[in-house]
Amino acid sequence: MTRPIDFYFDFASPYGYFASTRIDALAAKYGRTVEWHPVLLGVVFKTTGAAPLPMVPIKGPYSLHDFERTARWHDIPYKFPDPFPLATQLAARAMLWVQQTHGADKAVAFAKAVYRAYFVDGRNIMLPETLTAVAEAFDIDAAAMLAGANDEATKGRMKLDMETAMARGVFGSPFVIVDDEPFWGFDRFEQIETWLKNGNI
Amino acid sequence: MTRPIDFYFDFASPYGYFASTRIDALAAKYGRTVEWHPVLLGVVFKTTGAAPLPMVPIKGPYSLHDFERTARWHDIPYKFPDPFPLATQLAARAMLWVQQTHGADKAVAFAKAVYRAYFVDGRNIMLPETLTAVAEAFDIDAAAMLAGANDEATKGRMKLDMETAMARGVFGSPFVIVDDEPFWGFDRFEQIETWLKNGNI
Repeated sequence: MTRPIDFYFDFASPYGYFASTRIDALAAKYGRTVEWHPVLLGVVFKTTGAAPLPMVPIKGPYSLHDFERTARWHDIPYKFPDPFPLATQLAARAMLWVQQTHGADKAVAFAKAVYRAYFVDGRNIMLPETLTAVAEAFDIDAAAMLAGANDEATKGRMKLDMETAMARGVFGSPFVIVDDEPFWGFDRFEQIETWLKNGNI
Repeated sequence: MTRPIDFYFDFASPYGYFASTRIDALAAKYGRTVEWHPVLLGVVFKTTGAAPLPMVPIKGPYSLHDFERTARWHDIPYKFPDPFPLATQLAARAMLWVQQTHGADKAVAFAKAVYRAYFVDGRNIMLPETLTAVAEAFDIDAAAMLAGANDEATKGRMKLDMETAMARGVFGSPFVIVDDEPFWGFDRFEQIETWLKNGNI
């Protein structure tokens, strides 16, 4: 019995979005399932001292160019969103609440739709009305979701999930853990495939 | 007439070393030549605020693991060196002097040998005696090289080269520029190949 693959991502991360369009198919090809974990890079960056990519001198402008080129290279629909980046706590906690109340499959469908809303349709996923519009498309009670995303239990779970993720070494997005083997970045997906095929590299 | 590919690397960068084992063959496959440019990441990091990978919390230990795994995945000889990282000014200026006095081909052969000395044989390339031993294997006058690496003209050229590189957007190692298109990282070599084949992505 193989363990699920752990997939960590921040809703404001372009490379996390790219990975979200491929991770399930990659896992399924090798008979594996995926557990999706929203994380908050802002919290991680307090420990690692990193800054959001576009704010880094010289590297920032390159990154914006690389987002576009990498999307084209992999044939993934993508439009640079505005504002970028943005706070993703509400989106992450909304997903946790959907997971808790409607199950993992619906939470993953919700997460994919949130990513599309931001990186394809250019909608501001920091706004409650964007998230509720996404929820309604999945027959999720929007008012209940907003209340749930903001209740103390969900906030506590988000905090605990972040501590667990960082204790497992998660420091970026996307971050994938297969059989305790950590992979950072969409550009490690080929190495992930080798690992899934052979159980080692 | 196509322009040479510009290849920027720091002698203490594992991913730069990995790239150095592949860049010439990749370019030759598409009828292109490569200009090798040693850079000093320490200078760049003063502008970008970055730190050497092993010193970054959480990301540091992952990086050491990723160096090893990436070397195995690409079947590149590699042994984590000690000390790591180290100052590469002397190695970089020695290469510039070799280029100036013995031509680009010998300078590239020298650079590849310096990388092997550090990342395969575990020799300390900060020490003059390591660099002179490498030079002697190429019939380069070791004493002249050391003097040349430390003269004001070479120091001035190094400074100018760094300013030029940063003005072109170089912020990491390896960094490759093809027809003004910038690529950062050994994990962009497949995109570089697509660019060389098609002239766009």
